[in-house]
Order: sequence, then C-alpha cells, then structure tokens
Amino acid sequence: MNQSSNSFNIPQTLARENVLKESFSIEDHEIPKKCIILSNNTKIDLYNTEGPIGFDPKNGIPKRRVEWIKKRKARGDKNFSQMHYAKIGEITEEMKFVALREGIDPEFVRSEIARGRAIIPANINHTELEPMIIGRNFLVKVNANIGNSVISSSIEEEVEKLQWSVKWGADTVMDLSTGKNIHETREWIIRNSPVPIGTVPIYQALEKVNGKAEELTWEIYRDTLIEQAEQGVDYFTIHAGVLLRYVPLTAKRITGIVSRGGSIMAKWCLSHHKESFLYTHFEDICEIMKRYDISFSLGDGLRPGCTADANDAAQFGELETLGELTKIAWKHDVQVMIEGPGHVPMHLIKENMDRQLEVCHEAPFYTLGPLVTDIAPGYDHITSGIGAAMIGWFGTAMLCYVTPKEHLGLPDKEDVKTGVITYKIAAHAADLAKGHPGARERDDLLSKARFEFRWDDQFKLSLDPETAKSFHDETLPQDRMKEAHFCSMCGPHFCSMKITQDVREYAEKNGYSELEAVEKGMAEKSEEFKGSGGELYIKT
Amino acid sequence: MNQSSNSFNIPQTLARENVLKESFSIEDHEIPKKCIILSNNTKIDLYNTEGPIGFDPKNGIPKRRVEWIKKRKARGDKNFSQMHYAKIGEITEEMKFVALREGIDPEFVRSEIARGRAIIPANINHTELEPMIIGRNFLVKVNANIGNSVISSSIEEEVEKLQWSVKWGADTVMDLSTGKNIHETREWIIRNSPVPIGTVPIYQALEKVNGKAEELTWEIYRDTLIEQAEQGVDYFTIHAGVLLRYVPLTAKRITGIVSRGGSIMAKWCLSHHKESFLYTHFEDICEIMKRYDISFSLGDGLRPGCTADANDAAQFGELETLGELTKIAWKHDVQVMIEGPGHVPMHLIKENMDRQLEVCHEAPFYTLGPLVTDIAPGYDHITSGIGAAMIGWFGTAMLCYVTPKEHLGLPDKEDVKTGVITYKIAAHAADLAKGHPGARERDDLLSKARFEFRWDDQFKLSLDPETAKSFHDETLPQDRMKEAHFCSMCGPHFCSMKITQDVREYAEKNGYSELEAVEKGMAEKSEEFKGSGGELYIKT
Repeated sequence: MNQSSNSFNIPQTLARENVLKESFSIEDHEIPKKCIILSNNTKIDLYNTEGPIGFDPKNGIPKRRVEWIKKRKARGDKNFSQMHYAKIGEITEEMKFVALREGIDPEFVRSEIARGRAIIPANINHTELEPMIIGRNFLVKVNANIGNSVISSSIEEEVEKLQWSVKWGADTVMDLSTGKNIHETREWIIRNSPVPIGTVPIYQALEKVNGKAEELTWEIYRDTLIEQAEQGVDYFTIHAGVLLRYVPLTAKRITGIVSRGGSIMAKWCLSHHKESFLYTHFEDICEIMKRYDISFSLGDGLRPGCTADANDAAQFGELETLGELTKIAWKHDVQVMIEGPGHVPMHLIKENMDRQLEVCHEAPFYTLGPLVTDIAPGYDHITSGIGAAMIGWFGTAMLCYVTPKEHLGLPDKEDVKTGVITYKIAAHAADLAKGHPGARERDDLLSKARFEFRWDDQFKLSLDPETAKSFHDETLPQDRMKEAHFCSMCGPHFCSMKITQDVREYAEKNGYSELEAVEKGMAEKSEEFKGSGGELYIKT
Repeated sequence: MNQSSNSFNIPQTLARENVLKESFSIEDHEIPKKCIILSNNTKIDLYNTEGPIGFDPKNGIPKRRVEWIKKRKARGDKNFSQMHYAKIGEITEEMKFVALREGIDPEFVRSEIARGRAIIPANINHTELEPMIIGRNFLVKVNANIGNSVISSSIEEEVEKLQWSVKWGADTVMDLSTGKNIHETREWIIRNSPVPIGTVPIYQALEKVNGKAEELTWEIYRDTLIEQAEQGVDYFTIHAGVLLRYVPLTAKRITGIVSRGGSIMAKWCLSHHKESFLYTHFEDICEIMKRYDISFSLGDGLRPGCTADANDAAQFGELETLGELTKIAWKHDVQVMIEGPGHVPMHLIKENMDRQLEVCHEAPFYTLGPLVTDIAPGYDHITSGIGAAMIGWFGTAMLCYVTPKEHLGLPDKEDVKTGVITYKIAAHAADLAKGHPGARERDDLLSKARFEFRWDDQFKLSLDPETAKSFHDETLPQDRMKEAHFCSMCGPHFCSMKITQDVREYAEKNGYSELEAVEKGMAEKSEEFKGSGGELYIKT
C-alpha cells in the first residue's frame, strides 16, 4: 500500500442543499449539530451526538422516528431493514438524515447500504434515535461501552454514563450490563439514547441459566433476542463464528480465548460436542433481526488477547466464517458489521484490515483498539488509541473505545470521558489521513486561532474545551492573558509565534511583502555568494 | 512499503557474554538494569535509565567515566568523539557499555557509529553519564524536556523533574531553561544526570542580548557554546539549516515558524539580510564539538506547527540543508542526529522518514511527536503518541515527548510522568513492530501473568506499576483479590479467562488435551456433517 494515498473517494455533493430540495419530512435545523461562532465571526457546524438535553430520564427523550416507522407499518412492510429499502431503491428518512449529518449525497448513502459497505443501526422500536451511519466512506465512528456488573454501579449511574458518553462524542453505546436489573437498565438506556444501542444478548441469556454456559439453549437465546428487540436494541453482537474446529486452535495461545461471548460459546460447543445454536440457527436469527431492523455486529469471539496471539489461525479462521455468515445475512437484507481485534502489534494491523475487507466482502469493520503493546495497564486507552487511529485510516468504520481501566477494573465517569476523547482523536486523525471532505476545517481553524493567540477560540474548537482552558489557567490564570500575544510556554520575550509575526511585519515594512521580492533579493545575494567562491556553504 | 516487514535486522550475538570476555573495565553488574523476579521465579532484566539514587543533589551522582576520559587525555587525543574512535576501529568503553545495555554485539555498535547511523551523546565533561545509544537499529529512545522559564519554577524543581523523568524511563533530557539562573540550573542538572543532557544554546545566547535576536553575534554564540561544553552538555540543538531563502516559504503557512530557535534565526537572517552565523560558522562549531564529543542535534527550525503546514517546501528545503551539514560534521567526525516534525497527519508521516533517511544519509532521526491532529489541546501527548509510535516503527531513533500541557502551559510533575509513559508506550510499540530482539519478552510475560491472574506480577511488569495497582484497587480493594481467579471487570461468573481455563481443563479431562486428538474428533464430526448434507452451514 502507498501510505500517502487516500483510500477515500466519495462524491462531494453539497448534500444539505440537495437534500432540502427533496420532499422528505426533515428540515436542516432538525439535524443535530453544534454551531460554534468564533471571535472573528467565523461559524462552524460540528457533528454532534449529544441529542436533546434537559428531559427527565423517567420520560425519555423525544421520539422523532415515530411517524417514519408508522408509515412503513401502515403500508404493510415485513422487512424493515435499511438494506432492504436501499436495495429496492428507496431513500429512507434515516438515509437522508445521515446524508445531512455527514454532508454527503443521500443517493451515495443508499448505494453504500445496498452494497453492504455501510449500515444504519436503527431498530424500529428505538424511535428516540438520531440516525447515524457506519461505513468506511463516512466519518469514522466511536463506540463507548457502559453497563453495570455484578460488582458495582446502579441504573441511574448507567443512564448518566450514557449521557456523559454522548456529551463527549460517542457515536454508539454498547450496554454490557450483567447481573440483576439487566432488562430495566436497558430500558432506561434506550429511552434516553439519541445514539444506537448495542448489546451482547448472550450475557442476558447466560443470566437465565445461572451462568452455566452448557445449559444455554436456542429457545432461551431466541426469547432473549426478542425481548431485547422489542425494547429497541439497534445492534446485537453475536459470536456465531466460534466453530468447534477453531476452539483447539486457541489451546497453545498465551491468553487463550478472552472474549466473554467467545469463551461462553466455546465452552458450549465443547460440552455438547457440536456447533453452537448461534451458527446452526443463524437464519432464524436473521428472520428476527429483519422484522426490527437490528444490525448484526458479528462478534470476534476468538480475537487475540495479547499481541503474541495476533493474526493466528483461530482468529483468521473465525473471520472467514464471519464472511460466510455476512452473505447469509445479506440474503435476508439484514445489515452487518464485523468485529475485529483486540491486541495487535503495529506491523500486523494492516493485514487485519485487508483480510477483513476481502473475506467479509467489505462489510464495515468495527474494531476494539487494537492495542499495540501489552505492557501498559492503566494506559490502554493510549496503547489502543495508537492502533485505532491506524486501523481507522486503513479502513475501519467504527472504533470501540478502551478506557484507562481496561484489564484492571470498571471505568468511572472520568475514565469514560478519557476513553471517548482518546477515540475521537483516533477517529478524527483517521478522517484527516483518509482525506474526508471537511475533516481538515476544524484543525485549520484551531491552528489559525492558535497562531493569532485567540485562546478562547482555541478552547471552543477543541475536543475538550474545559480541560484545555483549565490547563491554560494553571500557568496563566489572569483573564487578560486570554488575549496575551505570547503563549504560556515561553513568556513574553521568546515566543516563536510572536517572533514569526514580527518577521512578517518586518518583511512587509522592508519591501519583502511579496515572495517575488524576497526571491529577487535572494537572487542578488546568490550572485554575491557565487562571486565569493561559488560554494553554497561559505566559511567565514 | 510492505507494512508487515520488519525494518530491523541486527546481529543477535549474545553480547553480554562476548563483551565480558574482553578486557574493558566494565563488569556486567555495573550495567544499569532493573531486575524483576516474578512470583513463579521467572527473572527479567529491564532496561533502566534511573541511574544511581540516594545521592545529595548538591554533590551530584558518582562520576563513572572519569578514568575512561583521563586515559584518552593522557595519550594526547585531540578529537574525543565516539565517531572518531569508531572510524579508527576502537571500541570505547561507552560503546561496550551500550552494547551490554542493549544486548548487542559491541562491534556492531562501533560500525553503526562509524557509519553515522547511530550516536552516543557523551560530553567528556559529563562523567556522571551512563552511556546510551541513539540509532534506528537499537531500542527506540525517548527524550523529556524540562527547564524553567521566565514565568515559573525553580532550580530544585528542575533537578526533581530530571530525576522524575528518568524514574519513568526518559533516555535523554533536554534542559530548555530560559530566564535567570540558566547557568546554575544547568550545572545542577548535569551533575545529577545519568542520561545525556541536551540544550538549545541560542536560548542562552539570546538572554545575553536581552532577547533581541538581531543583536546576536557569532562571538556571543561561540562563547555560549564553550560555556555549556565545559559544563558537560551532551548534545546541542543548532538550527543551522534556517537559510534566508527558506524564510519566505513560510509566509503563507497557517502557523508560520513555530520553532523558537527557528524564528530567532529567521529574524536574524532577515534583519541582516544574510545567512546566519550558525550556517557560516558551521565548521567552527564542529571544531568546538569534537574537542568535547558533543553531538549535533540539527534543529528543524522550519518544522510545521500544524497539520496543514506539514511536508511543505520550507520544511523539506531545510531538511536538505541539514543533510549537507551532516556531511560537513562527519568530515570532522562529529556525531549528528536530525530533528524532525512536529505536526503531520498520518498519511504524510512515512514521507518524512523516507526523505530524512535519504537526504540526511541515514543519520538518526529525532522527532517531536508528530501530532496527527490539531483539535485536541490538553491531549497532545495522545495526538502525538500516535504519530510517534508510527514514525518510530518507520525508523525514527529517538522520540521527543509531548505532555498534556503542550500548547497550553508548563508541564508539572504529573504531566512529565504522563508524557514519558506515553512515549515509552510509543517507543516500545515501535520496537515490537520492528522486531527488536527481546522486545516481546516483557509483553509475553505480562500477558501470561494476566491470563494466570497473577495480579502483582502484572503490576511489576507494567510501565507504571503504581497506577495499575491503584486502578485495580478502586474496584477490588481487598488484598485477597490480588489472587482472585476472576478479573475485576466481569465478576466471578462471567470472566472469559476463567471460562477459557475451564475449557482447557474440560478438554483435557475428556481426552482433548492434545491438538491431534481434538482434530481427530473434528474429523469424525466432520464426517457426520458431510453425512447430513455436505454443507458446512447446517440449518436445523
């Protein structure tokens, strides 16, 4: 691969205008965005995932999709998947909504979904959703995991974590709750979520058999799927690729099977000595999913749990099976994304992306990290943020965040924030490297504000204005310093930016305002150099 | 470039044994290392930069190199540079020391230094130094910047920052002090430093002319060089590549010139309308450097200050000049490394590395970050850690750290620690990706400890044991949990690692202990599958 090439080539239609000419029931002002006005009156609309705020969690947020869904039900639709509509040429409100959000032609959105290269996870029962798209020709997205556990946290805390995650920019949220109150926790989360909610249904199914993996049955699992589908879960992680023959391939790994779903299914397979019900009932699952428009997130149950285990036969064997299952899901018009590793050293990351695109027919990749080293517990948001930025550039559509507590404990509020922001950095860096239209605008505005010492504008444009401002205040707390024409690192005399401005002014005053003039000056000077011996390097 | 190839191919001699057979005055036990003994009695020696501890800062740390230098002076040497000795075939104590530290053949060390592909910054007056090597065929190194400024911090604080930096693994430290007490601060730092100290002498020279760049002269600068050389500074950042004709190339940039040294020299050049004294007196500078064995760190005065300005004509023009200057320095046997950007989006990073190797004749690259996006002030250790890991993998020899306070204020103790650890992650991830012999050992031991629930061993092997332990304690504070056979994220029932162990035990109990047996079982099962219809995917 030519590293300086952009893998990105999307139509740059001025979507908003085009779309607004159409007759859909969406107005430009309904699209979520954060409008920032800088001190020089420059305006910029930032992509915004925060959703409607100020509503009582007990009532949930407004249900904006009710009429859209009602219309489809009224006309007797049986398959509600976005892929189904895309394939028959219909541009849904959801597609138009994401086209407006991303500034991209709605017809391109439709064609990517029809092709299976992008998904809009949007359960018909999650009417509170502000639709978003996951695909490598769109902005790279970030998922945050929340969820209580046997050991700690309450429902209220989980809703607060949801709101906190989207405040900092999470594009989807997975509810990984286990333990008691799992149904009720999920209900609260969905009713208050403007972003798609994903779950791993096997966790709840396992609760129903008291944690004994071998006692799981298709019937228990099916009922769990329907229970969650009715609530409005937008995508299900399903580890249907853990085949019996792959399990022994993990025996000599350093960390065996580290995916919870993967290890549950591996245990089931070995106990019964047959393929799991997730695999054998895959088409039955598709039948359920399409009635609600739930997307598959085909789980990588055999992902490596350390860099030493990366890219092995177990991992890539499962990936091929996920590719086969993708085709079956697409036969039912069910939307699919594929989950990816895990722990991968840098030189093995690209192979993951290339193989996934090949064997999974370009279905969107959704990766955890990957972590590029194992030696920094407590900093795995960083070890994984490095891998996430790279694989995002290579083509991953959504990055599952990792918090500083990974491998050590449950993330608290501050950890969730750190994880989301680290991953917004990775996703944005990937957008920049891919050349996503418009991605550079925010960087350039911030850089310009930085160069012109417009501190408040820098803060406004940054991913975390509060932290940026508080760090600046630690060194230069006085308000007047917010307009100081030197930066806090160097003090008033030595600031390089100030000197650069002086250089420009000097050059202008002395007739060097035009590059031509300076170059002319240089030419004369160059003659002198030549006269003095013809060497570029002059020793005096 | 083939991304999965290793750029790394060094002789894997068991250096320590070989070296100890020789007749140098270094014993194995004198080499700094941190010996870790795990609960299963596995031992591992970690590379250690902390130096001797417990000495009164007023007296400084022991002067281990005194006898080595005395011997060379006694025999009348005039050029003390490691490159000089390497070229005449002499393996110095410094070379042997770094060979032992890195576990690499001393003859290979010598040949890399002779070739200019690696440097050992080691001023003959910095006898407290524990020598280390910077080159892309060795472990990737990390530099931490400290230094007071007009606005804040004291000498004692700076020595404490030095000790703090090396405690967390900084391989070199730059003293970027400005303002009062600059000489005294530096003296304290060098006398207490086991790692090479770098400076930017133009900062002190500028103090001597009250901050007026245009009043700088060769004589003032020369005296400053000698003053710092006498104290024992190991490498000088010198912005000799800022040529008059490059300055106008920065006029249309978003952030102009952001290097302090670069902007000072640009201002000087324009004021006098001639090339700087750093360029015209370059050979005079070489004469000084070789008498002390000070290494050049040729400064990138025109590095981009935002991603929009990356890889432009000004930056690459200066890089070519640095390549020319490298050849001149090598003519004098003066060691050289080249400083690199700055702010660079991911898809433009590799071009920086490739060009540097080409035009600078493979002299070691020493990069700041690079930062892969500009939108996250407050998190620039992360935006830059991403770029640092990548460019380290591509071949950068030393990474200059960036702290969370970058662009906002002066780093405090906690920021310095965060910066160093983030960069240790980047450097180690690069070592792993390059396939440095032995780099994987620590990852694998930690992963194994993680899989076996040996929590204390995990903490010991991690880059920051204190943080790892405290994060674990937040969720599971009880001491007995340090041996709990489940991890804190999932609770006792659902831990995937526990289930994996159960799977292994189950497999063993049921005759699946050998892969062969399982595969045999699978073959039989496979026959059944075939009997049932010949399809891999079975719908039931």
